[in-house]
Amino acid sequence: MRAGRKTQPILNSVTLKEKLINDLIDTNNSGIMAEKSNETIQKEKRSEELTSFLQNKSFIWGPEPEIYGGIAGFYTYAPLGKLLKNNVENAIRKTFIKNNFWEVECPCVMQEEVWIASGHAGGFTDPVIKCSKCKSTFRVDKLIEEVLGDIQLGGKTNEELLLILADNQIKCPSCKGNFVPEILKHNLMMKTTIGLDKVAYNRPETATTTYLPFLRYLTFFRDKLPFGVFQIGKAFRNEISPRQSVLRGREFTQAEGQLFIYKDQKNNFEPYKEVKDNKLPLWSYQMQDGNNNPKLISLSEALEASTLKNQAYAWALNLGFELFKSMGIPAEKIRFRQHNLDERAFYAEDAWDVEIELNSFGWTEVCGIHDRTTYDLTQHAKHSGKNLVATREDGTKEVPHVIEIAFGTDRPTFALLDIFYEKKEVGEGKSVLHLPPRVAPVQVSIFPLVKKEPVDGIALKILDDLKGTFVCRLDRTGSIGKRYVREDEAGTPYCVTVDFEGVENKEESHMTVTLRNRDTEEQKRVHIIKLKHILNELISDKIRFEDIN
Amino acid sequence: MRAGRKTQPILNSVTLKEKLINDLIDTNNSGIMAEKSNETIQKEKRSEELTSFLQNKSFIWGPEPEIYGGIAGFYTYAPLGKLLKNNVENAIRKTFIKNNFWEVECPCVMQEEVWIASGHAGGFTDPVIKCSKCKSTFRVDKLIEEVLGDIQLGGKTNEELLLILADNQIKCPSCKGNFVPEILKHNLMMKTTIGLDKVAYNRPETATTTYLPFLRYLTFFRDKLPFGVFQIGKAFRNEISPRQSVLRGREFTQAEGQLFIYKDQKNNFEPYKEVKDNKLPLWSYQMQDGNNNPKLISLSEALEASTLKNQAYAWALNLGFELFKSMGIPAEKIRFRQHNLDERAFYAEDAWDVEIELNSFGWTEVCGIHDRTTYDLTQHAKHSGKNLVATREDGTKEVPHVIEIAFGTDRPTFALLDIFYEKKEVGEGKSVLHLPPRVAPVQVSIFPLVKKEPVDGIALKILDDLKGTFVCRLDRTGSIGKRYVREDEAGTPYCVTVDFEGVENKEESHMTVTLRNRDTEEQKRVHIIKLKHILNELISDKIRFEDIN
Repeated sequence: MRAGRKTQPILNSVTLKEKLINDLIDTNNSGIMAEKSNETIQKEKRSEELTSFLQNKSFIWGPEPEIYGGIAGFYTYAPLGKLLKNNVENAIRKTFIKNNFWEVECPCVMQEEVWIASGHAGGFTDPVIKCSKCKSTFRVDKLIEEVLGDIQLGGKTNEELLLILADNQIKCPSCKGNFVPEILKHNLMMKTTIGLDKVAYNRPETATTTYLPFLRYLTFFRDKLPFGVFQIGKAFRNEISPRQSVLRGREFTQAEGQLFIYKDQKNNFEPYKEVKDNKLPLWSYQMQDGNNNPKLISLSEALEASTLKNQAYAWALNLGFELFKSMGIPAEKIRFRQHNLDERAFYAEDAWDVEIELNSFGWTEVCGIHDRTTYDLTQHAKHSGKNLVATREDGTKEVPHVIEIAFGTDRPTFALLDIFYEKKEVGEGKSVLHLPPRVAPVQVSIFPLVKKEPVDGIALKILDDLKGTFVCRLDRTGSIGKRYVREDEAGTPYCVTVDFEGVENKEESHMTVTLRNRDTEEQKRVHIIKLKHILNELISDKIRFEDIN
Repeated sequence: MRAGRKTQPILNSVTLKEKLINDLIDTNNSGIMAEKSNETIQKEKRSEELTSFLQNKSFIWGPEPEIYGGIAGFYTYAPLGKLLKNNVENAIRKTFIKNNFWEVECPCVMQEEVWIASGHAGGFTDPVIKCSKCKSTFRVDKLIEEVLGDIQLGGKTNEELLLILADNQIKCPSCKGNFVPEILKHNLMMKTTIGLDKVAYNRPETATTTYLPFLRYLTFFRDKLPFGVFQIGKAFRNEISPRQSVLRGREFTQAEGQLFIYKDQKNNFEPYKEVKDNKLPLWSYQMQDGNNNPKLISLSEALEASTLKNQAYAWALNLGFELFKSMGIPAEKIRFRQHNLDERAFYAEDAWDVEIELNSFGWTEVCGIHDRTTYDLTQHAKHSGKNLVATREDGTKEVPHVIEIAFGTDRPTFALLDIFYEKKEVGEGKSVLHLPPRVAPVQVSIFPLVKKEPVDGIALKILDDLKGTFVCRLDRTGSIGKRYVREDEAGTPYCVTVDFEGVENKEESHMTVTLRNRDTEEQKRVHIIKLKHILNELISDKIRFEDIN
């Protein structure tokens, strides 16, 4: 995640009053904040507009629980947002399954030992500092970055960080009080208890829980490597002052695929052959250092140039690309950014992020693809005392490597809303969500022009007929114009209007309705008996609206 | 849940040694346990067989994390179990959506205030007692019931419970030590923290979180009641010594539908008319008291006889029936049991459970349908200070009632496995899972008889062709007989075998494969070009296997 974050108290109970105060602090805080660029201001305006649109149009509500004041980082997917998120998750499932990954569902709550082994119990912390006056808590590195701009703080000791605060006279952004000169470690895991006193945590990621049944996988896959498993499920992080809607929730849904593979299979990976000519927008760390733009490069070229290290990893990058395209993210909004050597975990052989260009936040990390080598299995073998090795056909035993595709479903859901949201000026009267039809929450809306027979009855019959195939709704209230506005805002790609002209005194096979295209507002008259077929072809991208005759 | 539970220490870290000790205690514990009936012994045997089958065949693994010893009540859905659970959840979604319910996704972690208002922070406790010797903790009412049989403990004070323990010389089942004579309250919620010190809980149910955005629903549904919303998501309960696999997990998936309705609409409920002649197996509390069996009664008859109180509630019971049938549970394994007056929550106007007859545990509660009246909205209005009322067309304001269909997806998933598991004796060579084809984890398995061309290549082509429509897998290893055994155990309804006879020296339109029916083991030769169509018809129950010609 590279988009800038803002500094806010750790417990962000957003009341209107607080919001106003925070906004004042952000814009008029007597110079301790860096000047904002025009571009930043535009993005922030867009982000605010979008957030309020998503609230009012029932995509994302929160911070929840709203009636109790709300706590930052917790959201409800409202009816339209939930349908969209389900479509995103189903696209992920389908793409993983097509690529021979098998889904598992592991517990969200796990005992302390697991997180000691994974390293989360010790190292999964943020440095925080507390105001001596108002007791608000801030993440110290983010606070310094916000005041002094994008400076390098990696490797600084606590003493050095305190010195920077003092030297620059940085005060509490909430009340301008002084900080208690002590840096605390804030662990991001949510602690809980099983039984009477067994310490446990809500998992901060799905990945660790996916590694644990490794010996069971060997049975299921009959000891044949490579094999892939994935998990889509909740994870929890007690972030310091999260903002940016569901982009940084304290509770979020992850989708993580894990490929278990012997080291020597990485460059002898059959499925690679089928994709080796596919081109990806790669942005290696050398290109970043040289201020070059990302470049479309085929996997085989990237391997030859040693930009990528092995076939299996290249294949995993390609799968990452397929995953995000399957969710409806436009290819041109996606790039692959390689981690610098000092950004990577010490065990990671290679690491690239998938980034999506958002209108509200610029290029934003949505996925990490990591070659984790033998790290996790080795750690859990050590801590559990179990021998986590696979057995080759010749009887030799070996700890496999793991290549991970780690992402979530909240960010792509938000990305779809951000990318396809078109805010029209008031004169034009409405906003439109140009979501790809196959992921749109509601695919077809049906309007009886009047609430009279035969119009109303036929509209109901059409609803009944389409309901098993598409997500549909019937709207009887308001002018047709108003109903179109509502569906444009909901992202519904097609509206069907039943009128007297099309159905009165007609045999069933001659009855017609009008079909409207959200994006062009064009309408065509089509036969009711052909409607389902036409909608099917449109929604599965087999025909374009102009092809209907 | 009416199936008997057993007494075990609260922290159930199941090692083999402990299991053996527990089994010894269960069967040889010098008379403090009640004698088991033959039927109970049969069920327990069946339950153990099933559990081990589900572990070995990759349906349900655990208790998790297994390599760290495992803690009771936490499970992993393994690849086959997860596919089945997804199918169950998709059937639920489809049925709710068809009935005009809209899905939402609310947070799992919520602050203390919410649970004080809902009553969970105070009242959601079990009475427990601790052994003075081995420190094991037990749920006191369950312990007494196990020793003394099914006695009535409702309404007993702590002093009375302690007296019963003393009078009957009930000792710790783990070590035969004496109990500390004090009954503790064990709250079932898992406590955690948001920010630095805000008390919060992992939700113990989805329902409460679904009620909170009530004012937002009014906007989405444009103030028109009745409306329905549902949520499928995780909930957490720190149960004392849970057993019975996923039937009583400490972490589980709930699916709860909520119908918001004005009081006077309950007996003027349009959708009722469509279902009023449907018959449900109703078992009212009067029938239970009179030792009568459940009876198939139409909703309209039940309303006339005052067995059911109003149309909306009757409709909700019918929807409950539809939901469980849509998941593949056979209608004859379902009954509706009304709560006795003293079983109901004080605010509940009526309450019925859906029960499923399991081979391992007998009749088991899987769903509660409750008329919660205005209870929840009133509580949350009081505690949040927000006015949670709806506005009628004439401008009058009113707190709507809520009718709830509360169930989970773990129990029906387990029920499908329990009901359709056929254990064959060793002589017969295998076990079969007769799952309904539309919910089976893998629907089609494809076997090239030999790993030679053209057989192998054609098998791959068939896989490619079917993969977009069904969950398929290809199996190349072992004799055909062994491959059939594997698929019978996985519940795969149809297997396709490609052999030389069917494909060698043949034009594509003449090529054939054999198609095998799991349940009858019958095989038919069919044309490859017709295969997808035939499978589609079979899996959607449009034709029977005998109809293929």
